[in-house]
Amino acid sequence: MALDLYKYVASIPDYPEKGIIFRDILPLMADGEAFKQATDEITAFARERQVDMVVGPEARGFIVGCPVAYELGVGFAPARKKGKLPRATVSASYQLEYGEATLQMENDSVKPGQRVLVVDDLLATGGTIGATVDMVEQMGGKVVGAAFLIELKELEGRKHLRGIDTKTLMEF
Amino acid sequence: MALDLYKYVASIPDYPEKGIIFRDILPLMADGEAFKQATDEITAFARERQVDMVVGPEARGFIVGCPVAYELGVGFAPARKKGKLPRATVSASYQLEYGEATLQMENDSVKPGQRVLVVDDLLATGGTIGATVDMVEQMGGKVVGAAFLIELKELEGRKHLRGIDTKTLMEF
Repeated sequence: MALDLYKYVASIPDYPEKGIIFRDILPLMADGEAFKQATDEITAFARERQVDMVVGPEARGFIVGCPVAYELGVGFAPARKKGKLPRATVSASYQLEYGEATLQMENDSVKPGQRVLVVDDLLATGGTIGATVDMVEQMGGKVVGAAFLIELKELEGRKHLRGIDTKTLMEF
Repeated sequence: MALDLYKYVASIPDYPEKGIIFRDILPLMADGEAFKQATDEITAFARERQVDMVVGPEARGFIVGCPVAYELGVGFAPARKKGKLPRATVSASYQLEYGEATLQMENDSVKPGQRVLVVDDLLATGGTIGATVDMVEQMGGKVVGAAFLIELKELEGRKHLRGIDTKTLMEF
């Protein structure tokens, strides 16, 4: 029987600032059965879309994406914060509440024509995943799906996903 | 036939500073077969030791550790840089060339008595993994193995592993 994954999310009020409820997915990751179930649901979504590459942003996107890539038998490429990659990169920036942030990927990490799943733990405003999609497309990859453990509906992050098929396991 | 994993490591001379050769494991991760082979070798090592929890430090330790946890059917707990975790933590510090750095884990992420595998992409001086072992032990976990894709032998990182069974897939 499927587990109720909501029971494995810790909710921390007023973190990182007053009025925000932080959704902590680490208890889910720490439980073998819950981690497996979440991974398998995303993997099934990816299989339907014939994904042949998984991409996730630093750092919790690695936790979600790498087991999916492994189970599919495909590769994983990380999107990292600026300045962490030693070789030639593509980059994309996104707006923060104050200022902007830049992500980078190694510029040969997605091959032209690859069918890419982008993943992260949380879909909030969508800035991070939008920049990730942008970089995949710069390399000629086709983003055929997006998957998240949690979607914060009122932040309308799907606007950044421009119609990409999106699966989320939990909504708040 | 097994792949030669060394062919999937990019070596970047004089990065991040002159005289250092940076070993970049992202090409290995980006190749589905190489990623699967590396994961399976570490998983086999973990199975022999009856591991029931995997722990890895931010951020490449997540890439290596999460698929292993998934395949074993056990949980994964991250060791993060200070200040990134919203709930109560344990912490441990280690020496850098100049100054020191602190890692944290959520203080209920490893249960007393759990048999823990610690993993990272690279065993260099061993400071990061030593701090990770320290935190697991603070929570009452037993570190029964350590695994790395790459070991830089001359840096003698195994000194920080205090006799823990250690598997490395490649040596430089």
